[in-house]
Amino acid sequence: MGEGVEWGLHCCVTLGWLHAEAPVPTRRLAAWFDLPQEYLKKRLQALGRAGILASSPGARGGWSLARPPERITMMEVVAALEDGLDAFTCTEVRRRGAGARGGGPELGGTCGVAALMRRAEMAWRRELAAHTIADLMAQSPESAARTHRNYRHLTG
Amino acid sequence: MGEGVEWGLHCCVTLGWLHAEAPVPTRRLAAWFDLPQEYLKKRLQALGRAGILASSPGARGGWSLARPPERITMMEVVAALEDGLDAFTCTEVRRRGAGARGGGPELGGTCGVAALMRRAEMAWRRELAAHTIADLMAQSPESAARTHRNYRHLTG
Repeated sequence: MGEGVEWGLHCCVTLGWLHAEAPVPTRRLAAWFDLPQEYLKKRLQALGRAGILASSPGARGGWSLARPPERITMMEVVAALEDGLDAFTCTEVRRRGAGARGGGPELGGTCGVAALMRRAEMAWRRELAAHTIADLMAQSPESAARTHRNYRHLTG
Repeated sequence: MGEGVEWGLHCCVTLGWLHAEAPVPTRRLAAWFDLPQEYLKKRLQALGRAGILASSPGARGGWSLARPPERITMMEVVAALEDGLDAFTCTEVRRRGAGARGGGPELGGTCGVAALMRRAEMAWRRELAAHTIADLMAQSPESAARTHRNYRHLTG
């Protein structure tokens, strides 16, 4: 999993805290995280396409959460930023070599190994779907206060 | 996650079915799965180091399960074959840039994003730890029968 997920989740949490100050321009978010604007822009646009962030144009434009943070799950953010989410890929090894000879209809269904690996990945997804950006915001009240202070400093 | 996990799980299931015929030489497992011996050997050795497989030397030597298949979890096999198991890596982005200015003790604890990503990975691990090689064997009675037929053919 790429670093983009980490940046994306932190951007969403920060934009949640900066609700009253939004929209936040890409250049400010880049300064906020000390990241190259172009790198960050691609992640923000991916979150925009997924309906997680909204962008507004113009000199005073920028990014904001497209929905209340209670309604944005961590799973949605991860899915928007990662293409291939499944860690395990089934290449149907059971159909290869001397072991597969004479294989019948039992090879038509899903492989048992793939099915149980998939089940584990579903457990991972369920856990991420059970937590929202609001949950992340609630974990760090001190960081919320620091965010407001620092954003005033950045824009003032 | 590499293909090695898929091969490793299938090797364990096959060696579970071939309990009475074990030990199974590397060259036969390679023919069984139509894999290069050297590729397979590295995976089998990793499973050996993890105490999942046992090897016996000599002309009639080879590999067998080191424990009953009820006592080998999928998690153990995956952990033996993959170095970096955690999909998410926390790089402490919260400590960088203008957003981190004036950060206090709240930055000393685990980041909330990392904690919840970790929780999801724990759910994945729990699911894999809850299923054993014996569970995988039980899913495919037809493949068990085919395995015995084909192994007799390979060795006869």
